[in-house]
Amino acid sequence: MKLQNLISKIRPLDEAAMESARARQADLTKPPGSLGRLEALSIQMAGITAEAEPKIEHKVVTAMAGDHGVVAEGVSAYPAEVTAQMVHNFLRGGAAINVLARHIGARVVIVDMGVAADFDPHPNLVIKKIASGTRNIARGPAMRREQALAAIEAGVSVVESEIEKGLDILATGDMGIGNTTPSAAIAAALTGRSPAEIVGRGTGVDDAGLERKVGAVQRALTVNNPDSGDGLNVLAKVGGFEIGGLVGAILAAAAHRKPVVIDGFISTAAAMLAVSLAPQTRGYLIAAHRSQELGHQIMLNWLGLEPLLDLDLRLGEGTGAVLAMSLIEASCKILSEMATFSEAGVSDKE
Amino acid sequence: MKLQNLISKIRPLDEAAMESARARQADLTKPPGSLGRLEALSIQMAGITAEAEPKIEHKVVTAMAGDHGVVAEGVSAYPAEVTAQMVHNFLRGGAAINVLARHIGARVVIVDMGVAADFDPHPNLVIKKIASGTRNIARGPAMRREQALAAIEAGVSVVESEIEKGLDILATGDMGIGNTTPSAAIAAALTGRSPAEIVGRGTGVDDAGLERKVGAVQRALTVNNPDSGDGLNVLAKVGGFEIGGLVGAILAAAAHRKPVVIDGFISTAAAMLAVSLAPQTRGYLIAAHRSQELGHQIMLNWLGLEPLLDLDLRLGEGTGAVLAMSLIEASCKILSEMATFSEAGVSDKE
Repeated sequence: MKLQNLISKIRPLDEAAMESARARQADLTKPPGSLGRLEALSIQMAGITAEAEPKIEHKVVTAMAGDHGVVAEGVSAYPAEVTAQMVHNFLRGGAAINVLARHIGARVVIVDMGVAADFDPHPNLVIKKIASGTRNIARGPAMRREQALAAIEAGVSVVESEIEKGLDILATGDMGIGNTTPSAAIAAALTGRSPAEIVGRGTGVDDAGLERKVGAVQRALTVNNPDSGDGLNVLAKVGGFEIGGLVGAILAAAAHRKPVVIDGFISTAAAMLAVSLAPQTRGYLIAAHRSQELGHQIMLNWLGLEPLLDLDLRLGEGTGAVLAMSLIEASCKILSEMATFSEAGVSDKE
Repeated sequence: MKLQNLISKIRPLDEAAMESARARQADLTKPPGSLGRLEALSIQMAGITAEAEPKIEHKVVTAMAGDHGVVAEGVSAYPAEVTAQMVHNFLRGGAAINVLARHIGARVVIVDMGVAADFDPHPNLVIKKIASGTRNIARGPAMRREQALAAIEAGVSVVESEIEKGLDILATGDMGIGNTTPSAAIAAALTGRSPAEIVGRGTGVDDAGLERKVGAVQRALTVNNPDSGDGLNVLAKVGGFEIGGLVGAILAAAAHRKPVVIDGFISTAAAMLAVSLAPQTRGYLIAAHRSQELGHQIMLNWLGLEPLLDLDLRLGEGTGAVLAMSLIEASCKILSEMATFSEAGVSDKE
């Protein structure tokens, strides 16, 4: 099986490269440890890439889009057609992710994983549509098991194509009206926590909408009874096509020793599925930020990740991930570009 | 008096520009509030610059250096000659601040405010030496009142020259072995908190060094009895030349409606003095990060500022400030470059 083959390629972080990066950090012209998390990041980057001085040249964010049948339950503040409209906005460069990706110099790869509208061909759009939106998870499974596998494999293929063009770091992004609902269902299924602890307001539902959303997640779990020991089952029962695409993207990046910057709530649900399919993926993940969405901290705790930023973001699209990417790039430049004590003729600690 | 004249030019934030930025944020293609602190930052930037869509082209970090007589009390993990050695490292581009400034595209302006060594002329070095290091604050005043005023005015003149070359945002940076000690004394004097609550390990003193440092700050306060109602008196009694330079830099930026990104412990002490001299400066300040240095949170609370980053940094030089600068620039680009709902043909909230 193709996916099992990919998963078997995901190796532990490279200890020798990490040791070498750690030694160099200690010799740079600054008090040891004074650059805090930037130092730790550069060492993790060395372990991921198996390079003592990792370089980031090509930065890529994959904005994966899909629609969700569960929107019929009144779980979103925006109408479902906004998914397709926002894909057009991405293609024209007017969305937040376009602005932030330009700011940090990242390439945006827009992927139709399962939008309920058809797009004309466009040089920046990759069409991997599994179906025109998922089914309503409050009433039955989101998709068939083969579709879940196809979504993951599509995500793998997107990232493998981008690696051929040049990719040194991947940020995950999403677009899909209603997609905080399946993400919450995935988180509840994998952590065993109650929907009320995890479901948040998404793009901004009111109190009644929040109550409908908690109910929809509860029904999704009851009706589908996802098997928390089987990531593919969880994805098929209560997931989404863009979430499946992100799972594949994450697994492919890890298999090719590329760091993955995990954005907010939806991307973190995908990361949980990737880690549940391949636990060794965890070392390749960097959590970008702590989302304002209620259950995000529970999900980060389950993954054992401490996010880099805490800016009250809750937009998705990969916006937090590209901001964090720039910090990760900075950490690598510190490692390779700073002078050492002996090079600079600076006296070390007394 | 020149300084009073400058201070009188510091105006409140521009309400009309802020209102216009707020209205535009609400019309951009994202759920309202979903970019969290980036939205608030862009609105503050509009108020600071009095522009509805502020643009950042020229980013400047001033790395101000000075030596400290209090090093004689054994308060630092590094010998005093490191201040001058690090200035040379800055000039050669090998320090952390050089690497991070290059990463985000900022200009580094290195200023000798009072290093205990003389430098040959260098195109990137501004020499404003007030004296070759301060006197030992544990035994008497750091400097004379005229020197404190001269240090502030030198900082003003550095920033005014940079504004002529092009400066849209200023980051504060410092270099000075021993300078967490006067910074802690300033913080204790202005907040009334005890030295033990504020003094941290700086570049990394051991337990005995920490005890000596708390004692030195305590003696500095007892011997000098700084007047917390008079910022110039506090600077002269327990401050430093680079701290005075930063006070002037902050006041000049505010007077010219330029945002100031405050780095860590030393820069925050300078910001406290600037606010104590001119309370209306506060609106022009953006706190870059929460330093690992013990009393930094107390100082941020006194200023009423919530930092953008929390990355366990404790290096100074302006390193946290330049990282934050990139986020502030991103917030301005979001405001001016994102499409609105009507431009993009995206349906608004139901």
